Amino acid sequence: MTISRVAIIGLGLLGGSIGLAIKARGLDIATTGYDRDPAVRAKAAERGLVGQVYGTAAEAVTDADLVILCVPVGAMGAAAHELALGLAPHAIISDVGSSKEAVAEALAAALPGACIIPAHPVAGTEQSGPEAGFATLFSGRWCIITPPDGVDPAALAALSDFWTQLGSKVELMDAAHHDLVLAVTSHIPHLIAYTIVGTASDLEDVTQSEVIKYSAGGFRDFTRIAASDPVMWRDVFLTNKGAVLEMLGRFSEDLTALQRAIRSGDGDTLFDLFTRTRAIRRQVIEQGQDDERPDFGRGHGE
Amino acid sequence: MTISRVAIIGLGLLGGSIGLAIKARGLDIATTGYDRDPAVRAKAAERGLVGQVYGTAAEAVTDADLVILCVPVGAMGAAAHELALGLAPHAIISDVGSSKEAVAEALAAALPGACIIPAHPVAGTEQSGPEAGFATLFSGRWCIITPPDGVDPAALAALSDFWTQLGSKVELMDAAHHDLVLAVTSHIPHLIAYTIVGTASDLEDVTQSEVIKYSAGGFRDFTRIAASDPVMWRDVFLTNKGAVLEMLGRFSEDLTALQRAIRSGDGDTLFDLFTRTRAIRRQVIEQGQDDERPDFGRGHGE
Repeated sequence: MTISRVAIIGLGLLGGSIGLAIKARGLDIATTGYDRDPAVRAKAAERGLVGQVYGTAAEAVTDADLVILCVPVGAMGAAAHELALGLAPHAIISDVGSSKEAVAEALAAALPGACIIPAHPVAGTEQSGPEAGFATLFSGRWCIITPPDGVDPAALAALSDFWTQLGSKVELMDAAHHDLVLAVTSHIPHLIAYTIVGTASDLEDVTQSEVIKYSAGGFRDFTRIAASDPVMWRDVFLTNKGAVLEMLGRFSEDLTALQRAIRSGDGDTLFDLFTRTRAIRRQVIEQGQDDERPDFGRGHGE
Repeated sequence: MTISRVAIIGLGLLGGSIGLAIKARGLDIATTGYDRDPAVRAKAAERGLVGQVYGTAAEAVTDADLVILCVPVGAMGAAAHELALGLAPHAIISDVGSSKEAVAEALAAALPGACIIPAHPVAGTEQSGPEAGFATLFSGRWCIITPPDGVDPAALAALSDFWTQLGSKVELMDAAHHDLVLAVTSHIPHLIAYTIVGTASDLEDVTQSEVIKYSAGGFRDFTRIAASDPVMWRDVFLTNKGAVLEMLGRFSEDLTALQRAIRSGDGDTLFDLFTRTRAIRRQVIEQGQDDERPDFGRGHGE
């Protein structure tokens, strides 16, 4: 099957970037879009994120070969309900959500019998909204597709091709395994960044202005992650509860062990871990997953 | 008093950057250096980190007006002992260590009667060694000086001027308060980054290659911090034990509260925190402590 028309539901960072990437790469694909917020729709039309912005989800998905839900994972079910009336029978329903088992269930419940293939492009920034998207967001990044049992192979191939055309590298994964992997590589890192930034801003003996002033010592990196979209992240933690709590338990155990090492002055335990983690960074860089320049290449202004 | 000759003991990222900054800014200051590792001394001479590299600490500090110890905080006492014989009576002894009470004690014990003024430039990258330094490391960054009681005002003024000439903004602070502030803005962020990277690499149900492959979801930021120098950071945790354990206790309490919110499906608690932390990021950027571009301005392939 050929994807010649894509409807994007939710025109924030991810949705907008998909539209811009299709345009920038000159793909022969028409794009339509909808967002439930009229101000976002207006901004999306102004920036030309999609070819045509519609006032309802049902209109936006009419005749679309592929519908991509780019809304917070907790809103997937409601968004799918809203567009159901306009959906073409052959359309593939996909999404960009960061938890996949819950999304698969919500979409299947909202659109029984539809061709549902959840996906998750592992890409983003701390910014959100219709002004945040950019055409190269997915370039060189992984897109994990979690096809359900009995998926139509032609539809799966078409969705894989679509993401490849946007510059992504595609990987297929079981939804439950995806949720575990992403709990480690994304959800727990976000949770602890949110936590430490919250902790730091609540102290009595250190002022918030001191925390900000001396944030270059490491804290500022965490503030970037902790600036991510609150609704999106609330929903991720609520919908990937099992894997997040499992991984959080392991993290807490490891942190307690380090706490004990510090208390008892056990420098060897600290040194061994700190040496081991250095090797992980090298692999992240070797595999092209991060900028190799020191400090992310961040400028050291004058 | 005038600082016309600076001896740098320890020629890694910080020591090397001080030497390079003096040279790049054309300051009228002669620089000498020493490192206990002959390979580091050779590389330092090759890169011209200082005007003259010596084979002993005592030779390097001869006639220096200012001696800056740029060694791990656990090695400050030994390094001070080593240079004692060569020290001019008028010389200011300072350092760049990330914990200040322990360093002040170690230096006072090693060099009784000397003019000791500890300092901490809040700057660095995840890299270390004689090849890591660069001339603009301190530009626009804060340098916290923690003068002891009864400090010579002229010496303090000279040290402040020195850091200002390197492009830093100088702040005076009590050593104990410094250690508390830095525990929050630097030490705990490093500790939790080391921890999560260790946790992720120890899992059975998620492979290390998956962790690396999908690290763009947030984890990769933590790998950068967790690539920092193992000896330096081991020493920071061992010498700032009290403040680190205090702050770690608060972080753990807050993390437990979020864990409970996730378990009970309390989305409001998550949303409220995630909204509050976003405001902190805005202040970090407004105060020039980080790059305002999304994702630290990190390139997105292609």
